[in-house]
Amino acid sequence: MVKVKVFSIGKSKEEWLNLALAEYEKRLTHKMSIDWIFVKDDNALIEAAGKEPCIALDPHGELLSSEILSEKIGKWGSKLTFIIGGADGIPETILKNARFIWSLSPLTFTHQMTRLILIEQLYRATEIEKGSSYHRHEPHGSKTSRRS
Amino acid sequence: MVKVKVFSIGKSKEEWLNLALAEYEKRLTHKMSIDWIFVKDDNALIEAAGKEPCIALDPHGELLSSEILSEKIGKWGSKLTFIIGGADGIPETILKNARFIWSLSPLTFTHQMTRLILIEQLYRATEIEKGSSYHRHEPHGSKTSRRS
Repeated sequence: MVKVKVFSIGKSKEEWLNLALAEYEKRLTHKMSIDWIFVKDDNALIEAAGKEPCIALDPHGELLSSEILSEKIGKWGSKLTFIIGGADGIPETILKNARFIWSLSPLTFTHQMTRLILIEQLYRATEIEKGSSYHRHEPHGSKTSRRS
Repeated sequence: MVKVKVFSIGKSKEEWLNLALAEYEKRLTHKMSIDWIFVKDDNALIEAAGKEPCIALDPHGELLSSEILSEKIGKWGSKLTFIIGGADGIPETILKNARFIWSLSPLTFTHQMTRLILIEQLYRATEIEKGSSYHRHEPHGSKTSRRS
């Protein structure tokens, strides 16, 4: 059982988000417990999470594939702390102590969307680990070249 | 008024997704209309959308920031067709005719999540264009270096 803590600024009340998170939390039962911790601002975030070896979700972090994320989660052990920053990103103090700085995408997401993407990726990581069909691998041998 | 068509394989019935999409569609009223078109498989996708100059959402596409996406949407005109592939990605025939191949992230997403990210980014693009506070720009002058 992996214990996950997710710190973020500002609680969101969207019904769709609560329903979606509940769905993934249910699927994660017996695998991961998710503790959502809401704080009011950057100072409260530093106070609450500044000393934890965390994974900071920040636009300047490293981009990962779901497969690499799954490997990392396997190595990070049974206690994981994620930090989602506010509109100004993650405070420097937290970035300095972070065990990893992760960028979900070069796109900017709301923190609601970030919470949903995070939990789906955590669930996906457990399914990749298990080798289930939830995560289908690339069926074709070669990559299509990029176009712009 | 921008007319958006989104083709995808398999309809999803999740309540949270319907609620979330309805919320963004409401916010897009008078700016963009979104027509979700569901087909049953790759052949039906080629049949329905194979001749449209589309934007294909494919893991091998180009990563974009929300700002660049907003610029592109401004240039693409008033009719936009997006195609979300199935578990095997987008059929080659469609990729060949695509006006742009876009990757949301190196992460793998479900097609439900892809629909939600797409509509939020379309809404964000209109807010960036308008210069509203929905999309906050980086307040710090310099980028934090990447760590791994």
